[in-house]
Amino acid sequence: MDYVNGPGRNHLFVPGPVNIPEQVLRAMNRNNEDYRSPAIPAMTKTLLEDVKKIFKTTSGTPFLIPTTGTGAWESALTNTLSPGDKIISFLIGQFSLLWIDQQKRLNFDVDVVESDWGQGANLEVLASKIAADKSHTIKAICIVHNETATGVTNNLATVRKILDHYQHPALFLVDGVSSICALDFRMDEWGVDVALTGSQKALSLPTGLGIVCASPKALEASKTAKSVRVFFDWSDYLKFYKLGTYWPYTPSIQLLYGLRAALDLLFEEGLENVIARHARLGKATRLAVEAWGLKNCTQKEEWFSDTVTAVVVPPYIDSTEIVKRAWKRYNLSLGLGLNKVAGKVFRIGHLGNLNELQLLGCLAGVEMVLKDIGYPVKFGSGVAAASAFLQNSTPLIPSRI
Amino acid sequence: MDYVNGPGRNHLFVPGPVNIPEQVLRAMNRNNEDYRSPAIPAMTKTLLEDVKKIFKTTSGTPFLIPTTGTGAWESALTNTLSPGDKIISFLIGQFSLLWIDQQKRLNFDVDVVESDWGQGANLEVLASKIAADKSHTIKAICIVHNETATGVTNNLATVRKILDHYQHPALFLVDGVSSICALDFRMDEWGVDVALTGSQKALSLPTGLGIVCASPKALEASKTAKSVRVFFDWSDYLKFYKLGTYWPYTPSIQLLYGLRAALDLLFEEGLENVIARHARLGKATRLAVEAWGLKNCTQKEEWFSDTVTAVVVPPYIDSTEIVKRAWKRYNLSLGLGLNKVAGKVFRIGHLGNLNELQLLGCLAGVEMVLKDIGYPVKFGSGVAAASAFLQNSTPLIPSRI
Amino acid sequence: MDYVNGPGRNHLFVPGPVNIPEQVLRAMNRNNEDYRSPAIPAMTKTLLEDVKKIFKTTSGTPFLIPTTGTGAWESALTNTLSPGDKIISFLIGQFSLLWIDQQKRLNFDVDVVESDWGQGANLEVLASKIAADKSHTIKAICIVHNETATGVTNNLATVRKILDHYQHPALFLVDGVSSICALDFRMDEWGVDVALTGSQKALSLPTGLGIVCASPKALEASKTAKSVRVFFDWSDYLKFYKLGTYWPYTPSIQLLYGLRAALDLLFEEGLENVIARHARLGKATRLAVEAWGLKNCTQKEEWFSDTVTAVVVPPYIDSTEIVKRAWKRYNLSLGLGLNKVAGKVFRIGHLGNLNELQLLGCLAGVEMVLKDIGYPVKFGSGVAAASAFLQNSTPLIPSRI
Amino acid sequence: MDYVNGPGRNHLFVPGPVNIPEQVLRAMNRNNEDYRSPAIPAMTKTLLEDVKKIFKTTSGTPFLIPTTGTGAWESALTNTLSPGDKIISFLIGQFSLLWIDQQKRLNFDVDVVESDWGQGANLEVLASKIAADKSHTIKAICIVHNETATGVTNNLATVRKILDHYQHPALFLVDGVSSICALDFRMDEWGVDVALTGSQKALSLPTGLGIVCASPKALEASKTAKSVRVFFDWSDYLKFYKLGTYWPYTPSIQLLYGLRAALDLLFEEGLENVIARHARLGKATRLAVEAWGLKNCTQKEEWFSDTVTAVVVPPYIDSTEIVKRAWKRYNLSLGLGLNKVAGKVFRIGHLGNLNELQLLGCLAGVEMVLKDIGYPVKFGSGVAAASAFLQNSTPLIPSRI
Repeated sequence: MDYVNGPGRNHLFVPGPVNIPEQVLRAMNRNNEDYRSPAIPAMTKTLLEDVKKIFKTTSGTPFLIPTTGTGAWESALTNTLSPGDKIISFLIGQFSLLWIDQQKRLNFDVDVVESDWGQGANLEVLASKIAADKSHTIKAICIVHNETATGVTNNLATVRKILDHYQHPALFLVDGVSSICALDFRMDEWGVDVALTGSQKALSLPTGLGIVCASPKALEASKTAKSVRVFFDWSDYLKFYKLGTYWPYTPSIQLLYGLRAALDLLFEEGLENVIARHARLGKATRLAVEAWGLKNCTQKEEWFSDTVTAVVVPPYIDSTEIVKRAWKRYNLSLGLGLNKVAGKVFRIGHLGNLNELQLLGCLAGVEMVLKDIGYPVKFGSGVAAASAFLQNSTPLIPSRI
Repeated sequence: MDYVNGPGRNHLFVPGPVNIPEQVLRAMNRNNEDYRSPAIPAMTKTLLEDVKKIFKTTSGTPFLIPTTGTGAWESALTNTLSPGDKIISFLIGQFSLLWIDQQKRLNFDVDVVESDWGQGANLEVLASKIAADKSHTIKAICIVHNETATGVTNNLATVRKILDHYQHPALFLVDGVSSICALDFRMDEWGVDVALTGSQKALSLPTGLGIVCASPKALEASKTAKSVRVFFDWSDYLKFYKLGTYWPYTPSIQLLYGLRAALDLLFEEGLENVIARHARLGKATRLAVEAWGLKNCTQKEEWFSDTVTAVVVPPYIDSTEIVKRAWKRYNLSLGLGLNKVAGKVFRIGHLGNLNELQLLGCLAGVEMVLKDIGYPVKFGSGVAAASAFLQNSTPLIPSRI
Repeated sequence: MDYVNGPGRNHLFVPGPVNIPEQVLRAMNRNNEDYRSPAIPAMTKTLLEDVKKIFKTTSGTPFLIPTTGTGAWESALTNTLSPGDKIISFLIGQFSLLWIDQQKRLNFDVDVVESDWGQGANLEVLASKIAADKSHTIKAICIVHNETATGVTNNLATVRKILDHYQHPALFLVDGVSSICALDFRMDEWGVDVALTGSQKALSLPTGLGIVCASPKALEASKTAKSVRVFFDWSDYLKFYKLGTYWPYTPSIQLLYGLRAALDLLFEEGLENVIARHARLGKATRLAVEAWGLKNCTQKEEWFSDTVTAVVVPPYIDSTEIVKRAWKRYNLSLGLGLNKVAGKVFRIGHLGNLNELQLLGCLAGVEMVLKDIGYPVKFGSGVAAASAFLQNSTPLIPSRI
Repeated sequence: MDYVNGPGRNHLFVPGPVNIPEQVLRAMNRNNEDYRSPAIPAMTKTLLEDVKKIFKTTSGTPFLIPTTGTGAWESALTNTLSPGDKIISFLIGQFSLLWIDQQKRLNFDVDVVESDWGQGANLEVLASKIAADKSHTIKAICIVHNETATGVTNNLATVRKILDHYQHPALFLVDGVSSICALDFRMDEWGVDVALTGSQKALSLPTGLGIVCASPKALEASKTAKSVRVFFDWSDYLKFYKLGTYWPYTPSIQLLYGLRAALDLLFEEGLENVIARHARLGKATRLAVEAWGLKNCTQKEEWFSDTVTAVVVPPYIDSTEIVKRAWKRYNLSLGLGLNKVAGKVFRIGHLGNLNELQLLGCLAGVEMVLKDIGYPVKFGSGVAAASAFLQNSTPLIPSRI
C-alpha cells in the first residue's frame, strides 16, 4: 500500500522541503528541452536578473547550481577561501553544526563560537575576536541567518556593524537556506559577501537548485582562493555567462521554468508582503505555542524565527512520537528534533507559499496530537490565540481586492 | 492579475466541485488517445465493473456519460418515462427545485411534494399518495438523496418501504449527486431504479462525467419510454457495450484514467471507511456550528447531512458577504445560500477526498470571517468542539499503520 | 501490463481526439475551483469573446456545453427546430449518417440527400429543392463541413449562395467538428446559423466541451422552437450570461483553463497561419498517398480535406489490419474505416496542434505498416513526396524568427 | 513570444537531456514531501536495489546524488583517489576532454592518451602503459564508455582484459553518462569500479540525479582516498544507509518518484529489449546517414554508438546552421558539433524513451534541413534506408501482443 495515500492532502509543515504552489507544479510539468537552444539562455538571463531581487542585491552575481543547500555551502566556501584559512563560525544548532563540519573537512581553520541550542550566535564574542584580530588573520565569518533546527534568527546587521566598526576585511558568508524569500535579508545593505539558499525552502520549489549569490568582493576572492573545486567552481559559470550560453553543464529545464513561476508569484505578491506574511504566520505560531503552555526552544524574542518554530515538549513526552503520530493519524508532517534536541522539541515549519488557514489547520492538528500523546492541551486554545492575531492582521489577497 | 494566485492553497469547501487528490491529477495529466484502440475498452470494462460498487449494486448497469449532474438527471428521466407520465417529486431546496423544473420541461406530470427548506422530503405525504394510487398512475418517485442547498439527507430506505408496503410498481429515481461515495447508499438493497452522481462531487474528479446506474427494471422501462432522447439514450451505450467497444461517442480519455485512479483510492481506503470519514467530518462540522451559537439549516437530526452543512446566520448578517470575504481574505471557498435561503445561509461542503486538518483549517477560517463580518464568535470555539470529537474518533491512516 | 507503455510516444493520427500541446496539459493540471467565485466568470467572459474568433463571427453567441460533438449536434437542432420540421440533410459518410439518425430520432422530417461515400454533398439537388420550396416548408439545411469518415470537405459558401439566390429563410446548421480551427470557416460571411465543434478536435483539448455558436437568427428561432430540451437549452445559458455568472450548471474548471491556453496558442500562431498549416499538412499527406500508388477516398480535388485523409487500400488488403498493426508494432494510431468503407479505407488525421515532422514520422510509419501487410510500397516514397512539398512551403516558426 | 510554442511537439534529438515519457512526467507531478517520513526511505530502498540492475551489478553500491554528470564525475574521482595519484585518461572528444580537465583541476597526475576525434580510446597504448607499470603507480583508468561528442563507444571489456592480463590493480572508472540504460554495460562482469550516469540521459528523466555505482574495491579505496570532498562524499551516504534514513541531505522528492517510474518502464520493456531498441535505432540512423552520402564522424564500425550519431557535413556547410535551422523551422533539436568538430558535425541523439517513428520523423526533418542548407540530399533516401531496416527488425510492442 502506498504511504502517500491520505485520505486528503498531506499537511506539510516541515521546515523544508515545503509546499509547492500549483502554479509552479504546472510550470514544471514539461518535457526536457535542448538547453543550448536560444530559449533556455534567454530565460536564464531573466532568472539571474530577477533572482538578485530576492537577495536584495544589485551588485551581486548569482549562480543557480544543480545541487542542494549542502552543495551551496560548499560552493560558498571553496570559491572564496583557501585551505588553512581561519574562519569564525557559530554553532547554534544542527545546521550550523553540519556547516562547521563541512568547513573543517574542507580544511579551514575553524574558530567555533558555540551557544546553547536555542540561543543566537554570540556576537559579543565575535566583536571581541574581531577587535583582537589586528592582523586580519580571520578570513571569513560564517553564519546561518536562520538556524532551522532551533528556530533562531541571527542579527546579520550587527555582524556587519562589528566588521565595519573594526574595519575588518573578513568575508561575510551567510547561510540563508531557511531565510531568504521569507525573512528580511539585505545582501547589499548588510555587506554580505556570499549568501545562499535552496530551492525547496521559501522559494517553494522542489529540491535541486542551490542558489548562491556572490558580492564583487567574493568574486575577487574567488580568483585567488585555493580550495580545490570543479563542479562548484564559479569560474566555469562566469565563463559561460560571458558566452551568453550560461550553463557549464546541463541544468534542470523543469527547475528553471519552476523558478520562473516561483519568482513571478513572489513578485506578484510583493517580496515585502511575502516577508510580512511570514512574520504574521511566525507570530501566530508562537502565540499558539504560548497558549498551549509550551515553550519555544528559542530563548529570546530577538531571535524568534518567522520561518520555523521549535516547540519544547515536557520531559515526560518524546517529541519524536509527536511527529510520528501526526503523520500516521492526521497526515501532518512536522519536523523532528535533531541531535541535542532530539526527543525534546518538534518543529513547525511555516515558510514558503503558505497561508493562514493552512497554518491554523496545522495548529489544530498539533493540538490533537498533543492530546493523543498525553499532554493536557485545551482544544482550540492555540488556534484561538493564533486566529485572534491573524484575524486582526491578515490583509486582503492582493489579486482579489 | 490572476485571481487564482493565493498565497498558499485555496481552501475549497463548496459542496462541489471538490478537491482533486494529487493521485487523480497525476492520472489525468496525459495526452489524448485513440478511444477505439484496445486500451480504452479494456479500461472501460474495469471501470463499469468497479463503478457498480459505489452504488452498491450487482444487478445495475452503469453509464459514464460525458455530461454534468443536470445531464445525468435528464438521462435518468428520459430513458425511463414518457411525456405525460405522472411522477412524484419532492421540493426541499434549490437542487430538487431545479430537478423538478427539468421534470416539468420534459413534460412529465409532476406532483410536487414541498417541504420547508431545511426539512427532508415529506414521506408521510408520499405514503398517502402511494396508498391512494390503486391504479398505479404514478410512474416514478424522484427524490434527491442529499439536498445540497440545505444539507438535508432523505431517508431512502423508507421510500422503498412505502413502495413495497403498497406493492406499488413506481420507479424509484434518486439524485445521489452529493451523496454517492460519501453517504451510505444501497442501490440494490433499497430497490433504487436509477441512481446518479457527478464526477466532481464525492468522487473528487473534475466535472465532466455524469454517472448513472440503472436497475434491470429501469432498463426494461427504457425499452418503452417515449421521451425523446439521443445523446442521453442508454440504448446507444448498450449497443456499444455488446460490441465491446463501449463508447457511442468520444469519451474524455483523461476522465477515464482519473476515474480509475479515484476508484483505486476509494477502494484502497475502503468504501465503508470513506463513508465513516464523511460521517466524522459532518459531525465535527455540526459541533463547530453549535459551538459558534449558530443554527444548522437542517431542522432535524435525522436529516443531517454528512457532506454539506448549511449554516444559518443571524438576520443582521448577509451570508453572501461571508462567502465573499472568505475568498478575498482567507482563500477560503464556501458555498453561497441559494434562492430562498440566499443571504441567510452559507454552506460548508465537507465531501470528497478530504481530511480532518483540512476541515479544521476551514472551521478556523470561518471563525475569522464571522468575526470580520460582525458576528461575536469566540475564537477557537468551533475548532475546539470539532477537534475534541475528531481526536477521539479519527482512525490511523490505513496505509501508515 | 499497461497498453499505454510504448516505448516512446504514441503517434496519434486519428482524426480526433488529437494531440494536446504541453501548454494545454499544463494549464489543465489543477485542482477544482468554486465556479461561483469571481475568477471563473471573469475567465468565461474572455473565453466567450475569444471563441467567437474561431467561428469568424462577431454577431454570434457561443455556448460552451459540457458535452461531446453528439451533444453539440443535439443542442443545435433542439434549440432551433420543432418536431415535424422539414429539414434537408446530406448523407455522405458515417458522421453525417449519425447526425441524420439523430435528426430522425428527434422527430424532424428529414429529407436526406445522399451521395456516394467519398463525394461531397450534392448541392445541385439542394438548389433544386430550395428552388421548388416556394412555401418555405424547409426549415433548415444540415450539413457537415468536413465529413470525418471520408475526408470530404463541403463547400459551405455555395450553400449560402443557393439560399440567398432563392431568398430562402431556412436555417443553415453546420457540423464543424473536424473543421473549425483547422479549415477556413466563416460563420458571418457564409450566414451560418448554428456552427459547432468539439474540444478534442482542432482545438487540441480533451473531450468534454461541445462548442456551439448561434447567429441572431438562430437565437430568435430558439424562442419558438418546440423541441424538448433542458440540458441543452440555450435559454438557461442566456439567463446566466445576463446575470454575469455564466453557468447554469457546473463547468469543468480544467477545460476552461485548457481552452484559455488553447486559444492563446492559436492566436499566437495566428488563425490564418493555423489554417495554412493544415492546408500544408493535408497536401503533404495527399502527395504521400499518391506516391504510394494508393487512392484517396475523396473523389474530387474540390472536396479534399485538410484535416483527415481516408486512404483506399487495394481489395486484397483489410484496412482494419493496417490500423491494428500500426498500433501494435509502431505505436501509431490511425483511424479505422467506418461502416460502408470499413476494411476498405484507413484514415490519417492531420488536425490540431501538429507539425511537419510529426506528420512525416506518421507517413514513414504508414509505409512500414503497408509493407508489413503485404502492399508493395517503396520505402521513403511517400515521405519524399511530402518532404519535397513541405521543405518548400514550411514557414519559420513565428516565435523563433 | 514564447520560444517554446511550436506548433506541434518539439522533436528532441540532442543526446541529452532526452524525451521524458508521460508516465514519468505524471509520477513527478507532485508536491514536496517530508523526506524523513517512512515513505521516502521505503522507496529509496527499492530504488537503490533496482538501480543496481541498470549497472548489471549485484555487488556494487549505488549513490543517487542531487547533481549532474559533472558532479557524478567528481564523486567518482574524489572518493577513490588522492591528489597526486597517477591516472590514465583517454581524450577522444569534448566530454572526455572535460573530464580530463576536471581530473587535472582535482590535482591528479593525468596521463592523457589522445586519439583523433572520431576514434575510440587507444587501448593498445593502455596495454603498453599497464604492461610497463610494474610498480603499480597507476591508480586508475578513466574512460568514457560512450563519447557523446563524436558518437564513439569504447570497448570496456578489453580494458578489463588488459588490466587482468597484467594483474594490474588500477581502479577502473567509467563515465557511462550516455551509455548506461541504453548500451550493453556490465559492471560486475567487466570489473568496473565506479560507473556513473545522469538522470537526463537514457533514463529519460529531468536533469538532477548523478547516479554513481561503486564496487567493493572502490568503496575500500574511498576509506583512504585523500581528495577533499564533502557534498560528494560517499561516507555520508553510507552512514545514512546504515541508519535506514538514506539521505545525508534533502533529495528531490520528484526525481525519486520519477526514477521509480522510469525504472518500472525499463523493467517492463526489459533492459535487454531496451538495449536492442537502441541498437536498432542506432543502426537505422547510420543507414540514413550513409544513404544521404554523408559520413559518420565515428571512424570505425567497432566504435559506432547506438545512442548518438555525429554526422560530418561537407566542408562548404556549417553544421551550426543546420542545428539552428532545424530548430527555427521544424521544431527539431539536434546536437551541435563541439570544440574541434564545431561547425563540422551535427549530432542526432537517439537514446532514451524513443521509438521508430519518432526517429523517422527526425530523419525526415534532417533531410529537409540539409536541403534548406544547400546539401543535395535526395528526399526520402535516409528515411527509406532506415525504414527498410526497421520494418524488418522492429518487434511488436510487448504490452500489446
